[in-house]
Amino acid sequence: MSAMFRVRPDVLQALTGAILRAAGVDAVQAADVADNLVWHELVGRPNFGLLRLPLYVARVHAGGLRTPCTPRFVAETGAVAVLDGDGGFGQHVMRLACDRAAELAEAHGIGTVAVRNSNFFGSGAFFAARLADRGQASMVMSNAFPKVAPHGGTKPALGTNPFAFGAPRADGRHVLFDMATSAVAGSTVREAELAGAALPDGAAVDADGRVTSDPSVVAALLPAGGAKGFGMALMVETLTGVLAGATVASGVKSMYRDVGEPGGNGHVVMALNVEAFGAMGDFDARFDALADDVRAGGDAVRLPGEVRWDTLRDNTTAGVPLHDATLVAIARACEATGVEADLAPAA
Amino acid sequence: MSAMFRVRPDVLQALTGAILRAAGVDAVQAADVADNLVWHELVGRPNFGLLRLPLYVARVHAGGLRTPCTPRFVAETGAVAVLDGDGGFGQHVMRLACDRAAELAEAHGIGTVAVRNSNFFGSGAFFAARLADRGQASMVMSNAFPKVAPHGGTKPALGTNPFAFGAPRADGRHVLFDMATSAVAGSTVREAELAGAALPDGAAVDADGRVTSDPSVVAALLPAGGAKGFGMALMVETLTGVLAGATVASGVKSMYRDVGEPGGNGHVVMALNVEAFGAMGDFDARFDALADDVRAGGDAVRLPGEVRWDTLRDNTTAGVPLHDATLVAIARACEATGVEADLAPAA
Repeated sequence: MSAMFRVRPDVLQALTGAILRAAGVDAVQAADVADNLVWHELVGRPNFGLLRLPLYVARVHAGGLRTPCTPRFVAETGAVAVLDGDGGFGQHVMRLACDRAAELAEAHGIGTVAVRNSNFFGSGAFFAARLADRGQASMVMSNAFPKVAPHGGTKPALGTNPFAFGAPRADGRHVLFDMATSAVAGSTVREAELAGAALPDGAAVDADGRVTSDPSVVAALLPAGGAKGFGMALMVETLTGVLAGATVASGVKSMYRDVGEPGGNGHVVMALNVEAFGAMGDFDARFDALADDVRAGGDAVRLPGEVRWDTLRDNTTAGVPLHDATLVAIARACEATGVEADLAPAA
Repeated sequence: MSAMFRVRPDVLQALTGAILRAAGVDAVQAADVADNLVWHELVGRPNFGLLRLPLYVARVHAGGLRTPCTPRFVAETGAVAVLDGDGGFGQHVMRLACDRAAELAEAHGIGTVAVRNSNFFGSGAFFAARLADRGQASMVMSNAFPKVAPHGGTKPALGTNPFAFGAPRADGRHVLFDMATSAVAGSTVREAELAGAALPDGAAVDADGRVTSDPSVVAALLPAGGAKGFGMALMVETLTGVLAGATVASGVKSMYRDVGEPGGNGHVVMALNVEAFGAMGDFDARFDALADDVRAGGDAVRLPGEVRWDTLRDNTTAGVPLHDATLVAIARACEATGVEADLAPAA
């Protein structure tokens, strides 16, 4: 990592938007995707950031991401809605879903939107943070291309099916918790393979079903904690695939392998308006007491989200540090779209 | 286990109700608790069954469980309600909460009830199964007496904070997934200590914060999968404690240690009416496809819930097998309440 090479977030935002628009992405999607990618850079999650720009450009060019797209609500009953994403960017489609879920939660106390015909949406934490800004707790989840074996099995059947939770804090440093339901994320395998590093014990099996720590021979990941991760992954698939009417399990496409095909991913967001349950001040005071209890559990304890908000504060002030791999990705995306990068230094 | 000693479920149900009523429990609570305990025996989860009868009798006698109790809805907004459990049995209070959540979900597509001033409710799977019988998917969770260290810490701060999910199947063999967010459940430690067995690696620490597999020196359990289980436990505490306005973390009482004191536990149920998202037949067909994908992952793979429904079928026909410890518990509860047990053989 080039720790000294930092770029101002507004510069990254403008560059990302320019690359996406030059790739042919409509202005609305380009703005949503740029917001999403730059937020991940700001909070120190570069794997969901600009690193994937060349892939997104390639997917737009090959027809795997539709632009312009016209998502529409195909069902709406009380506090529930179903959104057909029309094959657009997950970052855009899920932004629409979360905005609607927030409105539903404001009207009914809770709101749920299930999404079909979408694509990879980045991290659930981004959307949970947006909802927390509106005073809402939320769960955010998505299915994904199958590469995780069920508990007791050795062949891929479910995606890494991420699950995220957020809850608002008065100071804006919201609770943010985000996990893959597999022992390790797909990106961890790619990174370990590039780095020649070993995977943690019990995270994957090879083609013969033997547990392996060699990222180059992984045939299936294993669920986090065996039955627990499997149960969570199945819950996510049941809600985001089966309930949402999205593509289910083996039908979901890989964004890497199937560059020209829509993923078909499904997502679900459940938003809870804190003030429907009681005063926000009481919620915040009770959470302060909980935070004190948790911190008393050990000196090294951090609440979920704290590291991200610290990183966001630092990167907003000092500029976003760009990994070498991210710099290369930006250069490649610029080449593919004819955009000239102008990465002004942060200071 | 006395595998040959089986008792008909209706006999167990009548006996459990008689013991509870003789302990002074009102008829409504006694019926709910008996339903709940016998269901757990039927599905092969005796730890949530009659084994705890002597404890419940002792808690009623000592004032730790209020009877009669008058739970009331203290807030209701759209699809959301808050229930004050008035210190009653969790099995009763949560039954009321789930019935209301189901009505809200029928009216609004989704319904959520947050519960405060309750007590230990058994397993979330019981309630998820009830809601699945009504065509609803659900999440069910509860906070608990703190005995789990936060990730990165060594002192107890959170409960084992269970999380359950259910989804309806047309054949009644619903998806049921239920987990402690700690590496092992509290009951696992008690059972290991009685049996002189070791705990799994990485499940607990001693008073000096060292990882231990000796159940007799456990000072704190560790979260399942480190940060993942911690994040889930914190989510459960945020919703069931902080959002519900229940007792939070260090304030929750132990049902074992604080026999004369109400637990103060909080619960949350979120019920989703499947038909608000689309036709039940389509949901079921898509789930069949998912089940096929999952089963293709390996010969030994079982979907969450399958073992329970197999056990329920067997025990309904052949009678409930009673462990030695359960027989002793029944005898003790009978002694404490003056009830004469009449355990007619099943055959």
